[in-house]
Amino acid sequence: MKNELEKYFDRLWPICRSITGNGLRESLNILSEVIPLEIIEYPTGTKAFDWEVPREWNIKEAYIETPGGERIADFNVNNLHVLNYSIPVDKTVSFDELKEHVRTLPDQPDAIPYVTSYYSEKWGFCLSQNQFDSLPKEGNYKVKIDSTLEPGSLSVGHCILNGETDEEILISTYVCHPSMANNELSGPLAAAFLYKKLASLSKRKYTYRFVFAPETAGVIAYLSQYGNHMSAKIKAGFVATCCGDAGPFTYKRSKDPTNLADRAAEHLLRSAGLPHSVINFAVGGSDERQYCSPGFNMPVGSLMRTMYQHYPEYHTSLDNKDFISFEALEETVETYYDICRILELNGLYFNKIQHCEPQLGKRGLYPDSLNPDDARTELHNLLHLLSFADGKMDLIEIADRRGTCALNFAKAIAECTEAGILERL
Amino acid sequence: MKNELEKYFDRLWPICRSITGNGLRESLNILSEVIPLEIIEYPTGTKAFDWEVPREWNIKEAYIETPGGERIADFNVNNLHVLNYSIPVDKTVSFDELKEHVRTLPDQPDAIPYVTSYYSEKWGFCLSQNQFDSLPKEGNYKVKIDSTLEPGSLSVGHCILNGETDEEILISTYVCHPSMANNELSGPLAAAFLYKKLASLSKRKYTYRFVFAPETAGVIAYLSQYGNHMSAKIKAGFVATCCGDAGPFTYKRSKDPTNLADRAAEHLLRSAGLPHSVINFAVGGSDERQYCSPGFNMPVGSLMRTMYQHYPEYHTSLDNKDFISFEALEETVETYYDICRILELNGLYFNKIQHCEPQLGKRGLYPDSLNPDDARTELHNLLHLLSFADGKMDLIEIADRRGTCALNFAKAIAECTEAGILERL
Amino acid sequence: MKNELEKYFDRLWPICRSITGNGLRESLNILSEVIPLEIIEYPTGTKAFDWEVPREWNIKEAYIETPGGERIADFNVNNLHVLNYSIPVDKTVSFDELKEHVRTLPDQPDAIPYVTSYYSEKWGFCLSQNQFDSLPKEGNYKVKIDSTLEPGSLSVGHCILNGETDEEILISTYVCHPSMANNELSGPLAAAFLYKKLASLSKRKYTYRFVFAPETAGVIAYLSQYGNHMSAKIKAGFVATCCGDAGPFTYKRSKDPTNLADRAAEHLLRSAGLPHSVINFAVGGSDERQYCSPGFNMPVGSLMRTMYQHYPEYHTSLDNKDFISFEALEETVETYYDICRILELNGLYFNKIQHCEPQLGKRGLYPDSLNPDDARTELHNLLHLLSFADGKMDLIEIADRRGTCALNFAKAIAECTEAGILERL
Repeated sequence: MKNELEKYFDRLWPICRSITGNGLRESLNILSEVIPLEIIEYPTGTKAFDWEVPREWNIKEAYIETPGGERIADFNVNNLHVLNYSIPVDKTVSFDELKEHVRTLPDQPDAIPYVTSYYSEKWGFCLSQNQFDSLPKEGNYKVKIDSTLEPGSLSVGHCILNGETDEEILISTYVCHPSMANNELSGPLAAAFLYKKLASLSKRKYTYRFVFAPETAGVIAYLSQYGNHMSAKIKAGFVATCCGDAGPFTYKRSKDPTNLADRAAEHLLRSAGLPHSVINFAVGGSDERQYCSPGFNMPVGSLMRTMYQHYPEYHTSLDNKDFISFEALEETVETYYDICRILELNGLYFNKIQHCEPQLGKRGLYPDSLNPDDARTELHNLLHLLSFADGKMDLIEIADRRGTCALNFAKAIAECTEAGILERL
Repeated sequence: MKNELEKYFDRLWPICRSITGNGLRESLNILSEVIPLEIIEYPTGTKAFDWEVPREWNIKEAYIETPGGERIADFNVNNLHVLNYSIPVDKTVSFDELKEHVRTLPDQPDAIPYVTSYYSEKWGFCLSQNQFDSLPKEGNYKVKIDSTLEPGSLSVGHCILNGETDEEILISTYVCHPSMANNELSGPLAAAFLYKKLASLSKRKYTYRFVFAPETAGVIAYLSQYGNHMSAKIKAGFVATCCGDAGPFTYKRSKDPTNLADRAAEHLLRSAGLPHSVINFAVGGSDERQYCSPGFNMPVGSLMRTMYQHYPEYHTSLDNKDFISFEALEETVETYYDICRILELNGLYFNKIQHCEPQLGKRGLYPDSLNPDDARTELHNLLHLLSFADGKMDLIEIADRRGTCALNFAKAIAECTEAGILERL
Repeated sequence: MKNELEKYFDRLWPICRSITGNGLRESLNILSEVIPLEIIEYPTGTKAFDWEVPREWNIKEAYIETPGGERIADFNVNNLHVLNYSIPVDKTVSFDELKEHVRTLPDQPDAIPYVTSYYSEKWGFCLSQNQFDSLPKEGNYKVKIDSTLEPGSLSVGHCILNGETDEEILISTYVCHPSMANNELSGPLAAAFLYKKLASLSKRKYTYRFVFAPETAGVIAYLSQYGNHMSAKIKAGFVATCCGDAGPFTYKRSKDPTNLADRAAEHLLRSAGLPHSVINFAVGGSDERQYCSPGFNMPVGSLMRTMYQHYPEYHTSLDNKDFISFEALEETVETYYDICRILELNGLYFNKIQHCEPQLGKRGLYPDSLNPDDARTELHNLLHLLSFADGKMDLIEIADRRGTCALNFAKAIAECTEAGILERL
């Protein structure tokens, strides 16, 4: 899988995405080769709760021309150089005026920062501190941003992968950042390739809803259309972001950590022995802010590796292909997949022989007595399952009571179901 | 404030208080200069639950005259020398008989112990071990205690500081100990000066009830009059004692630590980073024993510095002005005041935009995007408040979820209320 | 008590027990000298939930004769040599065939393992690895097991010790292992001698049900007769096993550790300061598997010293008299007895003076004020009891709130009941 991940990464990398515009649209089209996304266009001005859909932003080129005639901060060299969602500009300014429109990172002098201004009309450039320091303080600068902000639409891609029931699992990821690797390209890539694995299952209990939207504005528009339905149907959901660095996992809980999303994700991370940390819901985050807003309060967490704002490359030109690992990204996809497998297997099981243990020997479920140590772990998994299968405690809790992963009960579930002594409610 | 605290301390110090009598009355009168106490007199013999108000004790002088004619254990030098509530005596006794009526502290040979005998008629003296050891074993001793135990009354001071609602916060302190500083003069002083700060507020949600009573007997008499009303109205309460030493805070919980008193006090101590310990309710204590008795079970804890019985000077002549610090006493007053401010601010808040986040930019509540680090803490406080303001979770829990003090949300509450997107329920 | 324990141990030791047969019957008869057991015989073929009572096994002798004519693996020397419940055999076999029927412990070359085959018809021998290694590989071996497997019955002993109510405490132990000391003779011995102590009490609140049954099969048969009654009546129960080694206590919880059995046992172990560990319910265990099966889910835990499978001597010939200590076994009996005493004393108590404290002085319950340190622990126990005796919180929780053992309140309960201020609900 990691070669395919890299191939799609390389194609998506150069595109300048924003919360609206053709870069977003083009990215969704490329991802559609992996996951069959339906693209929804929300026209500029569409009301969505307290918000309305903003104008569509498109950009052809942007650069600064120094007094010496050198073209710097060229959008075509690195699309972070332009303030994302910048209004157009084409004029000559002094260094002092230019300075008011330039953002640098003094503490990371080699990095170009990523800055946006969606809701305050501005023009601006982002430079490395080193480059900025080298500019002459005298003379005229030409500044050119050939962008448009016009009525158009905001694009959201979604895909519904049907299961046996209309209860849903949500995988949401955002697609609005220009050329940065961990935050954000790793997120859409992980979600798309998770789709591939889930789609290949012969059957699924849950229906899976994949949402690829610009952060905040896109998800709010989407929720204005689907929020009520999702509130009723979603049993667990995750925001996929920062999926590609080599650090340990970070799971950010929803507001109520007793829900199924948090229970399944934490159960997997804990029982699989994956290095990880768990943090509570906080507003410094991504689209879980909308999914978990009080009117929805959906069971939506976020599985990441190193969290946004917790690595210095975050939101800079240093968050690039070198920063991520496709092995790590593949492991993240597999981990999301295992969580989905737990959700699929989880449920209420009922041992039909409720009083005393079933006699396993007569059903061929008891190992040979001359070798009592054989298969003791599997035997005890089976006995544990039967002992706790009262139709009230779900499999995740049953597995937690044994200190093992719910997936390790798959064989016992199959054998006991086959033997006619266990049923799923 | 600390100079005023010291001034009143110096005036109250020499008075010989007991659970009844003129020393108690005089002390309440002095405190009335700071807090307008109404004095209630409960006549001797008044029934109060399982108790009745005891006789009034007054004392003019007390001393021992040694065989050599020296006057020692002179009440006018230190009022701890006399067994508090002692019956009168005026006779000549041998050393052996005297010994039966003297209490010392062998482990603290310089300290005069504080001892009482309210419910068993006795006469007695308290001496330092060193002084006692120096007494001749032969010869006649004259013992004189010029006290009276007669029908009279037990005095309680209380003050009701009205707020917008009739829900009450209780501040209770005891006034029955002779010349000792931390236990007890620091308590009435803290309560009186807390009153001054609360009274100066332009508005208060809660009505504050201040009770200055002799320990046990006084509070039981008071509860026999006001207990039913208090049971219905008191939402949080605290027994102020041991407020003046320089040690870290000790918070003693009520019986049910989920109540508002314990939650507010512990939230403040924890979120303000004040060194402190928290202990559970126990019967080795003060008037919380009555407030938390099963028939009342009021939400009443006790904020102290070093707890009674946990410092060697406790209940001895060494618990004097040198032992306490007026800076520490002032900090205790301020800490009580902050707890009251939390109680005032706490409540249920409702974000009028329940679905997805409010658009802060259009309301001027979002910081300039070119400087995203500015005011991020305040922005996140505001977003956090809005995200959790579902009208069900109170502010203390909302603040705990962010790991910060509820008082830090005051600005966001004001701004969001002003912007029309938040209301208090 | 320990001499008597040893005397009965010595008589029970040589008997070859199994899940049916005369060895079991003889053992129950010997134990009946200590506890008046009623013996119930469940005929072969009796249906019991998913099981049926197996045939009765009896054995006269068993041995292997080597090619050199030496008699080894002699059942009369050590009854572990024969596979327990082995079918009869009497033939000549090669070493290679013999090998298929021999079980050894390569990691414990001096130990004879204990192996059973109840539900799969087999013959077999158990040898130490060292002995097995010394056997010649050539020549003919005579194998002789003179056993019978015939219709008969499975024997269970039980005893009901009546109390004032029909609510029951269960003590269950198993009697089906041949000559091993900790697992299992220590269990029946502990249960029998616990009976003696409980029977000597002048009154008991609870009725005590003692069950001495072969493990699994016996308890399932017993539950098919008494399970419904027990489900309704049992308030706490314990499986007594591994009671005799010198290790610290192990308490294995039932499935729901908020029940009375677990609360009482853990309260005693914790408050008495006994070295111990607590583990959750798990299916690798004994008859609690049946009592806690989902259809019953009785409050039944297990107090042990070193748990089965956690000492290398377990289920081998090394679990012998040298391995256990009769002092330790006596301490286990006393610990079970203390848990029963806690259960007897536990309940809801009501302080008749619910508002404010009772006046102790007038009832002679307050110590002399001139010696305030005297009896402070007892005074505070009494005050604590009265303060929490609201008729809703049981004594175990009241004691936990004070961090002391419930048994330490016996004196205060007696005094306050005598003084007319406390009643048991």
